Amino acid sequence: MHKNAAMQKTDIASLGEFNLIERLATLVECAQPSTVKGIGDDAAVVRYEQAETLVSTELWLEGVHFDLTYTPLKHLGYKTVVAGISDIYAMNATPRQILLSIGVSKRFFVEDLEAIYAGVKAACARYGLDLVGGDTAPSMTGMTIGITVIGEAPHDKIVYRSGGKKTDLLCLTGNLGAAYMGLQLLEREKRVFEGHSRKQPQFQGFEYILERYLKPEARKDIIDAMAAINLRPTAMIDVSDGLASEVLHLCRQSQCGARIYLERLPIAAETFRMADEIQIDAVTAALHGGDDYELLFTVPLSSYDTLRKDLQNVDIIGHLCDASEGAFLITPDNQAVELRAQGWKKDEADA
Amino acid sequence: MHKNAAMQKTDIASLGEFNLIERLATLVECAQPSTVKGIGDDAAVVRYEQAETLVSTELWLEGVHFDLTYTPLKHLGYKTVVAGISDIYAMNATPRQILLSIGVSKRFFVEDLEAIYAGVKAACARYGLDLVGGDTAPSMTGMTIGITVIGEAPHDKIVYRSGGKKTDLLCLTGNLGAAYMGLQLLEREKRVFEGHSRKQPQFQGFEYILERYLKPEARKDIIDAMAAINLRPTAMIDVSDGLASEVLHLCRQSQCGARIYLERLPIAAETFRMADEIQIDAVTAALHGGDDYELLFTVPLSSYDTLRKDLQNVDIIGHLCDASEGAFLITPDNQAVELRAQGWKKDEADA
Repeated sequence: MHKNAAMQKTDIASLGEFNLIERLATLVECAQPSTVKGIGDDAAVVRYEQAETLVSTELWLEGVHFDLTYTPLKHLGYKTVVAGISDIYAMNATPRQILLSIGVSKRFFVEDLEAIYAGVKAACARYGLDLVGGDTAPSMTGMTIGITVIGEAPHDKIVYRSGGKKTDLLCLTGNLGAAYMGLQLLEREKRVFEGHSRKQPQFQGFEYILERYLKPEARKDIIDAMAAINLRPTAMIDVSDGLASEVLHLCRQSQCGARIYLERLPIAAETFRMADEIQIDAVTAALHGGDDYELLFTVPLSSYDTLRKDLQNVDIIGHLCDASEGAFLITPDNQAVELRAQGWKKDEADA
Repeated sequence: MHKNAAMQKTDIASLGEFNLIERLATLVECAQPSTVKGIGDDAAVVRYEQAETLVSTELWLEGVHFDLTYTPLKHLGYKTVVAGISDIYAMNATPRQILLSIGVSKRFFVEDLEAIYAGVKAACARYGLDLVGGDTAPSMTGMTIGITVIGEAPHDKIVYRSGGKKTDLLCLTGNLGAAYMGLQLLEREKRVFEGHSRKQPQFQGFEYILERYLKPEARKDIIDAMAAINLRPTAMIDVSDGLASEVLHLCRQSQCGARIYLERLPIAAETFRMADEIQIDAVTAALHGGDDYELLFTVPLSSYDTLRKDLQNVDIIGHLCDASEGAFLITPDNQAVELRAQGWKKDEADA
């Protein structure tokens, strides 16, 4: 096996695909009762009793979804899993298995793939997931990661985006914009560092927003807590592309309008502080920043007391209304600002 | 909506992600009874009664798995689906749903994505599949396609790579090396064309090998035919990376050795003709060329008569043996050549 002398790293080509897959497979063990067959055949096999199967997939591209200048590979592995399972939690379902595909160019070594897998393994342990398959391919350009998640839920537990009713309360877990501010900080320090005006990037006092960007968590805790108090949302979506775009998705599919209230938007103190420092509006970050992986959901007005009394880490940020009334953000001085999605355009601008 | 004046094509950014997904979603309709929820939520939902769920995924990268100089986008869409479902057929299962992710840079337009989807739609119609989800992302470099396939099979019908026994017959559908020769022809004509020594590439007389490369089919017909005569292979794998590597996979997992006979390898006349013309050994193409999407499977000796009498388009190319005897190709003059995989290294060399 040929090792790169300077870095003591192993060439992927020298290891061979056979041995590579075997080596990576030893990093993961299947523990879920629903996994019938994991890595090592043409397809993975799963069996869910009395439940429906949910599948979602995401594509992560270097230079668009992540920048390896400041993203440790282990964190990247962890984060792609979190992003993938967040979609399954957003259906009020339980993720059980993942498939991970990685495309890597010659600048990466076996040890780099192992670092990604270490992050994947940590996420699997944290969330109770089996890695059951995937694909490993050479790339001519940057790194590409494809994550597919399989989950399960009984038929009557699944929550779609479409079930919201026009008097429902709009609820949100955690807080918004922190990951976006973490990204802005990393980008700033990258520019400063590239200009060599400092020897070390300065991150002190911003640990929270950095963690929100580099190692986010999915809201399994909220899904579990809602199940424990028998609260089933009428509609739900995960907030991965900014609140505005997710509110609009939910409104469109529930055929409703919405009012959200600016002073109700949960924004962390550190997010405000970073926003001040780099002169970006924190509310804009909350509305259009990505990577939050919080859950936006609706419940009937009648659930108000249960929600307030028995559910932690959830804010009521507004309510649905008739579709004819549109979707607006209401400011403290009672101005109504129409919600607009950014999505693809924003991604390209960021990239 | 901004149109590119010269080409009358639509910028993806100008359309916006909302409208893009809606426009692409109109190209596909879900028809499978097992599809509970298709495109348009955080995850797809499927329900299989009395069957297990199979999932496989592949990553296709521009410059490695396909070259857009000579691969029409519609064909590319069709081929990625075929490659994906081939893995499910190789488990003796039925593919039902697919999720398709595409990463595209600014050099692609909405119409280009529609061309890919037209190929995907054609494959879905041919094989009875629903497109139920995916992801669309901007790319900084080449095109990336991720295909995930969901399928079903009753517990006792699934065929793994590991079930082969040491006297089983090794069987192969169709023929080998044709797609690889089609690729060589396309590469040759690309080089000639780039050198401007001809105005048009010359493909006449090689339509079969070109189709095998550009628009392959998956062996649904064989899976159906085996079900009809109640023949269940003991082990099975699809031939996507060359016969040698697949025989070795099957041997390793079945803990067997193998003998395959050179004169039994099915190679089409056009494959031989192209091989002669460009002075490549046709048998090497059969052993190590990719993209065949044929099925390699094993049956007990006792199934010999059934196999010969009732199954078309299948050749017996050898047999399994004790693991201690290794895996060899036997030539007509009775020489034994050890089988070796190429895999990743070959891919990088091709690319």
